[in-house]
Amino acid sequence: MYQNNIKVLGFDVFGTVVDWRTGIARESEAFFKRNTLTVDPYVFADTWRSLYQSSMEPCRRGTRQYTRLDILHREMLITALASHGINQSKLSKYEIDELAFAWRKLDPWPDVVNGLLRLKKKYVLVPISNGNIALILEMAKRSGIPWDAILGSEVTQAYKPEPLAYLGTVDVLGIEPNELCLVAAHNYDLLAAQQCGLATAFVYRKTEHGENQKIDLAPEGDWDLVADSFLDLADKLDC
Amino acid sequence: MYQNNIKVLGFDVFGTVVDWRTGIARESEAFFKRNTLTVDPYVFADTWRSLYQSSMEPCRRGTRQYTRLDILHREMLITALASHGINQSKLSKYEIDELAFAWRKLDPWPDVVNGLLRLKKKYVLVPISNGNIALILEMAKRSGIPWDAILGSEVTQAYKPEPLAYLGTVDVLGIEPNELCLVAAHNYDLLAAQQCGLATAFVYRKTEHGENQKIDLAPEGDWDLVADSFLDLADKLDC
Repeated sequence: MYQNNIKVLGFDVFGTVVDWRTGIARESEAFFKRNTLTVDPYVFADTWRSLYQSSMEPCRRGTRQYTRLDILHREMLITALASHGINQSKLSKYEIDELAFAWRKLDPWPDVVNGLLRLKKKYVLVPISNGNIALILEMAKRSGIPWDAILGSEVTQAYKPEPLAYLGTVDVLGIEPNELCLVAAHNYDLLAAQQCGLATAFVYRKTEHGENQKIDLAPEGDWDLVADSFLDLADKLDC
Repeated sequence: MYQNNIKVLGFDVFGTVVDWRTGIARESEAFFKRNTLTVDPYVFADTWRSLYQSSMEPCRRGTRQYTRLDILHREMLITALASHGINQSKLSKYEIDELAFAWRKLDPWPDVVNGLLRLKKKYVLVPISNGNIALILEMAKRSGIPWDAILGSEVTQAYKPEPLAYLGTVDVLGIEPNELCLVAAHNYDLLAAQQCGLATAFVYRKTEHGENQKIDLAPEGDWDLVADSFLDLADKLDC
């Protein structure tokens, strides 16, 4: 068994816990059908997600105050629609609001709930996500994701990979950085956490971006743990 | 069945969910024994708790920035020890730190966990407590209190009965005030919540202050629900 001081497992959510691409394509496809629009829903999901990092940049740089991801997702959606030639003025505000909440309706990867139920017996489980509380809460309630508390950007008022997103979480928990392990499928996130003194666990999600995924196919740093799934992580942590 | 719009049940914690007096007396008694001090642990618990409301007043008035209840509890403890003639300089800092965390080790009333497990199938369950996240989290983990998220003072940066403590929670949840119901054993808390437009549920806790309790023995306002226990509340909400 891996020897460690870990008390809390903090999980990246989009990509690591939930399969955002399939879920966003599903919700978008229904939206396009209702509005008699012809757009490839997977291409649209990729377009929408491609705006994710840049949407948070003004908040990270301090030129915009902390803004909930629900709101940023809606702004990105308008841009994504426009880039597919769809003008929001032709659509009902209610329909756009509903689709913006598609990120609340993402399904977990098949190993997630059973893996977390095992890990929960020994560790405190929290998301360390850029998602706001209401978003992560509705997603969890829908799928039975058994968080002990919902932490992340809204509690720290900081977006990953800003150090405050990790160290603010450590501070709220009242623990030492090495007692918190970030679990993520993304090397950039783990690197930022490691630089803050957190423990790190890489989990493979080779189809997050579809069958032709190019990034995060393997661990690229000296992470403390590498696991194929949350069930494998539970094995490796003797849960 | 009571007709309502409620989506989220928000619970007061100290007194409503957990029996603070018995728990604090238990932890204090062990502390006094270890330090060969003679103090009635129930009297001491009452002294410590009597400092609770005034400890938050500077934060409520804005003359002190939001300070976690863990820290306020430690400050109150020093005052409570002094009022029983005990000088902190005679005690180890570690022992005092440990006793200050006694509030993390309180047991729920016997009906709580089973009641919440029933309510959780239909509602989102969150604490709306003045307790900080780490405090409420450790308490929950210790006793299996099944919160969906941990909200309250640290998320809103406001102490009840400030309106922001209730309306900030509504805002974080992204719901309407009447979709949130405060569940509490204290009339002052329910009144403040009702004035913010929340639904209200009074739960009897007739021995919170011991056998000779003088306050909150009955509902004193026009609360939406009145229940003998969390199991009775689950019955009344058809859970």
